Amino acid sequence: MKLWQKEGVSTAEQIERFTIGRDRDMDLYLAPFDVLGNLAHAQMLETIDLLTRDELQMLRTELTTIFRQIQAGQFVIEEGVEDVHSQVELLLTRVLGDVGKKIHSGRSRNDQVLVDLKLFTRDRLWRVAEAVRRVFDQLISRSEQHKADLLPGYTHLQIAMPSSFGLWFGAYAEALADDMLTLQTAYRLANRNPLGSGAGYGSSFPLNRTLTTELLGFEGMHVNVVYAQMSRGKTEQTALTALAAVAATLSRMAMDICLYNSQNFGFLTLPDALTTGSSIMPHKKNPDVAELLRAKTNRLKALPMEVTLVMSNLPSGYHRDMQLLKEILMPAFDEILDCLDITHFMLEHLEVKTNLLDDSKYDLLFSVERVNELVLQGVPFREAYRTVGKEIAEHTYAPPRQLHHSHEGSLGNLGTGLIIGQMEEAMAGFGAERAQIAVQQLLNPTS
Amino acid sequence: MKLWQKEGVSTAEQIERFTIGRDRDMDLYLAPFDVLGNLAHAQMLETIDLLTRDELQMLRTELTTIFRQIQAGQFVIEEGVEDVHSQVELLLTRVLGDVGKKIHSGRSRNDQVLVDLKLFTRDRLWRVAEAVRRVFDQLISRSEQHKADLLPGYTHLQIAMPSSFGLWFGAYAEALADDMLTLQTAYRLANRNPLGSGAGYGSSFPLNRTLTTELLGFEGMHVNVVYAQMSRGKTEQTALTALAAVAATLSRMAMDICLYNSQNFGFLTLPDALTTGSSIMPHKKNPDVAELLRAKTNRLKALPMEVTLVMSNLPSGYHRDMQLLKEILMPAFDEILDCLDITHFMLEHLEVKTNLLDDSKYDLLFSVERVNELVLQGVPFREAYRTVGKEIAEHTYAPPRQLHHSHEGSLGNLGTGLIIGQMEEAMAGFGAERAQIAVQQLLNPTS
Amino acid sequence: MKLWQKEGVSTAEQIERFTIGRDRDMDLYLAPFDVLGNLAHAQMLETIDLLTRDELQMLRTELTTIFRQIQAGQFVIEEGVEDVHSQVELLLTRVLGDVGKKIHSGRSRNDQVLVDLKLFTRDRLWRVAEAVRRVFDQLISRSEQHKADLLPGYTHLQIAMPSSFGLWFGAYAEALADDMLTLQTAYRLANRNPLGSGAGYGSSFPLNRTLTTELLGFEGMHVNVVYAQMSRGKTEQTALTALAAVAATLSRMAMDICLYNSQNFGFLTLPDALTTGSSIMPHKKNPDVAELLRAKTNRLKALPMEVTLVMSNLPSGYHRDMQLLKEILMPAFDEILDCLDITHFMLEHLEVKTNLLDDSKYDLLFSVERVNELVLQGVPFREAYRTVGKEIAEHTYAPPRQLHHSHEGSLGNLGTGLIIGQMEEAMAGFGAERAQIAVQQLLNPTS
Amino acid sequence: MKLWQKEGVSTAEQIERFTIGRDRDMDLYLAPFDVLGNLAHAQMLETIDLLTRDELQMLRTELTTIFRQIQAGQFVIEEGVEDVHSQVELLLTRVLGDVGKKIHSGRSRNDQVLVDLKLFTRDRLWRVAEAVRRVFDQLISRSEQHKADLLPGYTHLQIAMPSSFGLWFGAYAEALADDMLTLQTAYRLANRNPLGSGAGYGSSFPLNRTLTTELLGFEGMHVNVVYAQMSRGKTEQTALTALAAVAATLSRMAMDICLYNSQNFGFLTLPDALTTGSSIMPHKKNPDVAELLRAKTNRLKALPMEVTLVMSNLPSGYHRDMQLLKEILMPAFDEILDCLDITHFMLEHLEVKTNLLDDSKYDLLFSVERVNELVLQGVPFREAYRTVGKEIAEHTYAPPRQLHHSHEGSLGNLGTGLIIGQMEEAMAGFGAERAQIAVQQLLNPTS
Repeated sequence: MKLWQKEGVSTAEQIERFTIGRDRDMDLYLAPFDVLGNLAHAQMLETIDLLTRDELQMLRTELTTIFRQIQAGQFVIEEGVEDVHSQVELLLTRVLGDVGKKIHSGRSRNDQVLVDLKLFTRDRLWRVAEAVRRVFDQLISRSEQHKADLLPGYTHLQIAMPSSFGLWFGAYAEALADDMLTLQTAYRLANRNPLGSGAGYGSSFPLNRTLTTELLGFEGMHVNVVYAQMSRGKTEQTALTALAAVAATLSRMAMDICLYNSQNFGFLTLPDALTTGSSIMPHKKNPDVAELLRAKTNRLKALPMEVTLVMSNLPSGYHRDMQLLKEILMPAFDEILDCLDITHFMLEHLEVKTNLLDDSKYDLLFSVERVNELVLQGVPFREAYRTVGKEIAEHTYAPPRQLHHSHEGSLGNLGTGLIIGQMEEAMAGFGAERAQIAVQQLLNPTS
Repeated sequence: MKLWQKEGVSTAEQIERFTIGRDRDMDLYLAPFDVLGNLAHAQMLETIDLLTRDELQMLRTELTTIFRQIQAGQFVIEEGVEDVHSQVELLLTRVLGDVGKKIHSGRSRNDQVLVDLKLFTRDRLWRVAEAVRRVFDQLISRSEQHKADLLPGYTHLQIAMPSSFGLWFGAYAEALADDMLTLQTAYRLANRNPLGSGAGYGSSFPLNRTLTTELLGFEGMHVNVVYAQMSRGKTEQTALTALAAVAATLSRMAMDICLYNSQNFGFLTLPDALTTGSSIMPHKKNPDVAELLRAKTNRLKALPMEVTLVMSNLPSGYHRDMQLLKEILMPAFDEILDCLDITHFMLEHLEVKTNLLDDSKYDLLFSVERVNELVLQGVPFREAYRTVGKEIAEHTYAPPRQLHHSHEGSLGNLGTGLIIGQMEEAMAGFGAERAQIAVQQLLNPTS
Repeated sequence: MKLWQKEGVSTAEQIERFTIGRDRDMDLYLAPFDVLGNLAHAQMLETIDLLTRDELQMLRTELTTIFRQIQAGQFVIEEGVEDVHSQVELLLTRVLGDVGKKIHSGRSRNDQVLVDLKLFTRDRLWRVAEAVRRVFDQLISRSEQHKADLLPGYTHLQIAMPSSFGLWFGAYAEALADDMLTLQTAYRLANRNPLGSGAGYGSSFPLNRTLTTELLGFEGMHVNVVYAQMSRGKTEQTALTALAAVAATLSRMAMDICLYNSQNFGFLTLPDALTTGSSIMPHKKNPDVAELLRAKTNRLKALPMEVTLVMSNLPSGYHRDMQLLKEILMPAFDEILDCLDITHFMLEHLEVKTNLLDDSKYDLLFSVERVNELVLQGVPFREAYRTVGKEIAEHTYAPPRQLHHSHEGSLGNLGTGLIIGQMEEAMAGFGAERAQIAVQQLLNPTS
Repeated sequence: MKLWQKEGVSTAEQIERFTIGRDRDMDLYLAPFDVLGNLAHAQMLETIDLLTRDELQMLRTELTTIFRQIQAGQFVIEEGVEDVHSQVELLLTRVLGDVGKKIHSGRSRNDQVLVDLKLFTRDRLWRVAEAVRRVFDQLISRSEQHKADLLPGYTHLQIAMPSSFGLWFGAYAEALADDMLTLQTAYRLANRNPLGSGAGYGSSFPLNRTLTTELLGFEGMHVNVVYAQMSRGKTEQTALTALAAVAATLSRMAMDICLYNSQNFGFLTLPDALTTGSSIMPHKKNPDVAELLRAKTNRLKALPMEVTLVMSNLPSGYHRDMQLLKEILMPAFDEILDCLDITHFMLEHLEVKTNLLDDSKYDLLFSVERVNELVLQGVPFREAYRTVGKEIAEHTYAPPRQLHHSHEGSLGNLGTGLIIGQMEEAMAGFGAERAQIAVQQLLNPTS
């Protein structure tokens, strides 16, 4: 059954297989959101007299039933049904007959795909934000726990100045607070109502788009109907760019872990249960989990470019190409959530080596401390620098191991409170509550 | 002269040429911002007694002089001087001797590069925002001017439903309003103070980073010093991603213009002065400007990936690789500003064809209007759809050319006010004024 | 069961799930090739006395049985078994006991993965080459069929000079002949034997790598064992780059088809069975198949960048990151083969409009012909060009519709034979027969 | 002066500035090749009676003069002249009048750009090949020099098995031999004659394209004129992909050098003259050259994607977008040649640490040797593996430091001759001599 099937004409089987591809699998992600879109559209149709109050009530009951089936994992797209939108309409029509068909008034499938995608993306971005927050909390906790554990700091991969595990864990926490801003922007772009834009050219029905915007808890509307359609691609791109920002942070941390876990650094270890062995080397305890975290997050960084490639140089107006964006977007959320979970688990179990800086090979880390000693004694910086250089060359240099870093964000003053403040402000900026309340009300109308 | 030169050792000439590369050219972009960073740092040093009030005054006078030279185009990085930071220090030292050297206390070059880059990026992102706004205003104005000029709307590049130039121009305006949110995020990430992070591991001097944050008009601080350094790459990436978002909007519009200007569409024309000819075809009037706009903006979309490639899998801590990010970032601002200017110019001169839909080849655009007529007469949607399909197949279909689109964002109700509101809210979110005031005060202290 | 499992230590469940990921699915692609690698390795081990003749015979018999099971679709990787290599070894050990374990001598899993991937990639690249050839033949055939059917030629999307369907189909055929060279290079890089490189540092067993190179029909060897391991990533990258080259050709053709099928061009049509409809517009016949071909091939163009991102800045030596390359590489072959099949099907059914150039809107296509007329009468080119420009401006221009293009590759002389020659030479350069014969002999040893 | 300028119409200044961009700079790269293309075209025009023998002689003399001016660095594109092709024609016309104009017969500027780009790319790819060969020779020489110097081998960045500098240097040599195959393919795609394809639709003149193919020393022809035009983009893409392959090899080597030069590895050092210092840390000797090599080569890996982005979804036929490809392609050759030179210089001066494996922290490297000892004593592999694992756990393991790696490509048998053979075969496959001879003959005709 296809909504557009003409009598006597059927699409060649190869064409059908090729054009549907993995789309039905992807559509399952959209099912609950399709029901929400239907609920809001129906409620609006009733206000402009395209549905009676009774018809609305019948539709609401059926839609809520379907929603529960979806949540219970009982929803399938039946053989021969083209997509999730057709399946939902089919279920309605089976029970309600013509009333089920009426719900498509003033709407096109493009409309439905758009609104479903917005709702899905909004939902998933918030889940990602929450998972990021959990990893952030873990990082903050370990940062505080290890604030006194010193670590060599490197520049150019050369021994540079003293650092600490407090700084190292805290740095990644703050990175995630910044990534939260990018997630917030993606959330806000996803939080715009496209419903009512039809196939990208609006409708001659007197739709009330302000009402559906409210009902679905959107922050605002994609006003212009041509733009509502054009937001396809941009929504996905922005969401994937935000995931890529988080991925880049995780990926860099994973690289550090792989390096610091190497015997030549030996700063961190993973407990045996988090390592894997080798089929030929009996001594191996490999940090595969960190490597795969690095690889998976690196791969996620490619996804915005995939969207770019699919969309580049397409003129305005819908093209079927956009269907493929679902396959890029949807599994990416699963992947990043998976990566965040494993990061949380790994961070929880990571073991930190202490007293690292007692090793004399790290003596030179303190050369700037020595320069600063001289500066505080009144020697101009450039001269103090040359003096210490000479001490090192002539082996008269003695590392001043006492550290007095006190400024904001330094070894001795991590500024954890400030960082937590940034994170909390960024999360508050989503305005996620409004969406959650609206969804609850759609499913459980008080009247 | 190099700040770190040791006696008796000099870097091989090839190495020097290779490592400096185009960096001195890039550094010229940073010159005014380096002076601002110096001003704030000096002022802070005086509060922690590393400079006397007199020394601060001398430094301020000289730095202001250098700033004026830069603005007058008289600043150069002299032969043999490594970078902009060394050049500024050299100018100070020439006049002020040891006082000029003291300003480097509690700071490293990494620090300076970071703060200069933040200030530069913040400045340019706001310039881009203003240029985007100018194009937006032009689009809004043309949208209103042509709200009654109908245009065929396409899906799948197939004739679909009636659209209008009002919708087409307005769609790109709204796209820019959304892009402004992405620019805003980039601005906010650039608007964080890294100064005081040293080489990425802080300083044992009792620096007051809160003070320099205020003096430079930053919204906040990169608290953790390791993260401050790690923000390198992320700042550039986020800025370039925002430029890429704007570029994608321009690029798609350019594609539409090229297509609509083709004789086979004939919806738009460029005046002769905006076209170029062919060396062999005497009849040609080519829209090269739109094509190059498309190409340049498409190329800009690759830049975030360049940053990704340079940064991927680098462990934390500074690496010289990051120098190359300047070459990716800085010319990109010139390019996007150039593209925005030419877009503005082109939009101003674009000529729109009227009465396009009178041509009978566009009759089918009205098939949905016909379906909706039947629906309003009480026919269920799916049945009306089949009826009109049959009318078309049997050549009994008559296009109902009267359009009654009234909902928000439709043909008959463009929602221009709502779109302008979105743009204004997005621009207000930058908080750009605070930065501007701070810069003015640094250069013209009231006391 | 894991080859490297230590007693009393087991990997955390989350870690196991995360690290295995989709790898077992991917490994099924490798199964037949793993058997081939085992056959060659076993045969070699016998020549250096690490297996007896009897043991070899037993192993051969079992391996051939497993190969047949794989071909019959009866091979599975059992629950709890880590990968295809372990599964094959398990099957051998179940039947043969210790003899089954001996086959791992002088080899590591890295070795096996490498050789399996080379054999798999070599096999799939040749399948792609053959599918490309089928599309090429179709294009050549349609080029010849329509050599007299003229088509407007465009530059800058502006009407330029006369072209033909003969040229248009032929151009894509020749593009594929060039792409075949890129496929050939990928094939040659995949056609190198890494077996014997162990975990990337060779073996102290006196392996005979020259023998396994011959037995597996490789063109040559990755000599240096460190490089053999380093070829991971390069092999995948080169293969995917070749697929991307083919994809780019298909994608551009798909764009042409979408455009030429638009009512505003109307050069081509797809029969109804190859189109799909709209849920709201009863008149639509959309070329979804061409659009999805465009989208899928555009997406394939991103894959080399995914490999780059996973591999960038990894130091030499194996990293588990490389496992993820399988998920990028393997489904890509399915996708390109699918795209090539549907292209073949679509080309077969594409309907071409004739007599397009009779329409007076294409008159200007002949302006160069008019210039050339004057040149042949002795007027210098630049003067003739100006004269015709004036004729057009003053409406005295009359299009000389008679075309006399005779040079190689022109409208009147398509050069089909030359193009076929290029294709055949490129395919011959693969040397694919050697591999096919070797595989046959491994499975059916004559002695 | 523009070839296509119409009287009374001039292009707006902004448009001109925007459309020309950096194109005149890029065109200087093409100048010598434009002369070669002119020489061949003129010689062919004479054979089809569009030039007299005397006219040809005059043109030849002038063109050779221009070629010498270019080589002497005296060629400029004058103010107001649009491109290199116009400049060459202008110079000819100034001296020869109408004869100078006649050379444009049967040709368009697209034609000229195409043939110039092919000749330029062919030339530069060969230069790159020669520079790669020099680095290869250096690597081979250092591999042989250090074949006895052992190095820890890593997998997962964990200590794995013994390697050697002989293997390490040799691995990168062999990588370059494989990259040479990719360069060869790019060379072959650049080595096809597009001349005669006009603006992409051929010419009504009876051009002899076989003759110009021979005269310019091309291996073959882009036969189909539509395809000749379509090869634009593909030529650049393939060339840049080949540069990216070389870049990836250099980049990975640079990462190894940065890591091995870190104090925590300490396998390699750069002499002081190849390092740079820090402005605050007096002890620093940073490997900036290796870091910038890594960064520049990583950036080069992005360029194929830039071409993809510019070209994606452009319909067939010339678009001005393609002009921008010059800015991507041309500087890339300078960059890779620069990188290859500095690699050569760095490799020459790299200092290798000896006796690294005497350090007891590397004892576990020999665990596989111990396993193999047991296997050679008849213990099945899996059992031997478990025994050694137990020895390690119980601290009874004694590393057997005597290594007996003898197979092809292993520690004890580097297979240098085989690797050199691969390199030589790959270079021979270019057929570069034919092109060089043809160019010499064009400039110095024997008759």
